[in-house]
Amino acid sequence: MGDENGKIFPAQTPGGVKVLSFGFFVDADQPVIWRGPMLQKALEQFFGDVHWGELDYLIVDLPPGTGDVSLTLCQNVPLAGTVIVTTPQDVALIDARKSLHMFTKLETRVLGIVENMSGFECPECGHLEHIFGSGGGARTAEELGLPLLGSVPLDPAIVIGGDTGAPIVLERPDSPAAKAFMEIAEKVAKATA
Amino acid sequence: MGDENGKIFPAQTPGGVKVLSFGFFVDADQPVIWRGPMLQKALEQFFGDVHWGELDYLIVDLPPGTGDVSLTLCQNVPLAGTVIVTTPQDVALIDARKSLHMFTKLETRVLGIVENMSGFECPECGHLEHIFGSGGGARTAEELGLPLLGSVPLDPAIVIGGDTGAPIVLERPDSPAAKAFMEIAEKVAKATA
Repeated sequence: MGDENGKIFPAQTPGGVKVLSFGFFVDADQPVIWRGPMLQKALEQFFGDVHWGELDYLIVDLPPGTGDVSLTLCQNVPLAGTVIVTTPQDVALIDARKSLHMFTKLETRVLGIVENMSGFECPECGHLEHIFGSGGGARTAEELGLPLLGSVPLDPAIVIGGDTGAPIVLERPDSPAAKAFMEIAEKVAKATA
Repeated sequence: MGDENGKIFPAQTPGGVKVLSFGFFVDADQPVIWRGPMLQKALEQFFGDVHWGELDYLIVDLPPGTGDVSLTLCQNVPLAGTVIVTTPQDVALIDARKSLHMFTKLETRVLGIVENMSGFECPECGHLEHIFGSGGGARTAEELGLPLLGSVPLDPAIVIGGDTGAPIVLERPDSPAAKAFMEIAEKVAKATA
């Protein structure tokens, strides 16, 4: 996994995306039980000791909440911006607002809000059910003066793609979910151009 | 909020459950941006400085993952056991296995697994769709030698109950979701009796 300088090579997906995860370095069943300071050190290594090469974008998928990792990232890495992902129900939107205020305090730009699990269309009868409520992402975005970058519906194909490593944007590019992902990606690209 | 000894009184739900959250002490929009050691201190206060009175059970809802709060809790509080909540897809089950191994390392008993979002029944046509896959919780429970405590279906009534503070077990006790919650509660009660 390392080159002649001891740097780590990231894995590469069939779609050409380089990825790295803590999970690659440990047994699949073994937890990484680290307190904050250890996590901080590991995060620094992911930026400094990895052979990323020339990148268009470097995307960091953060755990929910306003904890150690988000703090370290905002304080130590020059970020183009953050995207807040939320589900539409009230309790999730409270957390989205907290995240916005955290990033604002840390002087990190918030590019917008993505609403996840925004509705489910029954494959049998076509009925659209807003399991986690409706329009919460749009309302919160407007209230906070942020763009709504897109709404991703609940779709079993996203789950299967996540489990098998075959993303829905490649497998079923005409599906509403794939189109939502592409729209979000384009808006983020424009906002950070 | 405090008594004559400066202790904190918890809030109480209509169903008679005492609750306390970090969120009660801060402005609703304000994030709690604390690193691990601060979180640890706050957790200790939640046990020591709160007027809990006589309790049947004290349930701590932990964030996902294997971080600071879980560590502190297992190392400082005598726990009757933990319950691992997961969704049925493969990537979530990997995390469930990691959690089990963490609690085992920390010598904390794992009472069993709860499968959340285990299926959605279309209210229009009755079609049952396993949006996040099917049977993953049961498979993982069997593989790890743990009981499956129950499977909670996706149901908009759970979300609405969570947002309004009217839990589905009181509002619609005959619904499959309410029955699943009751079954889980009974199994946990028996396992810790």
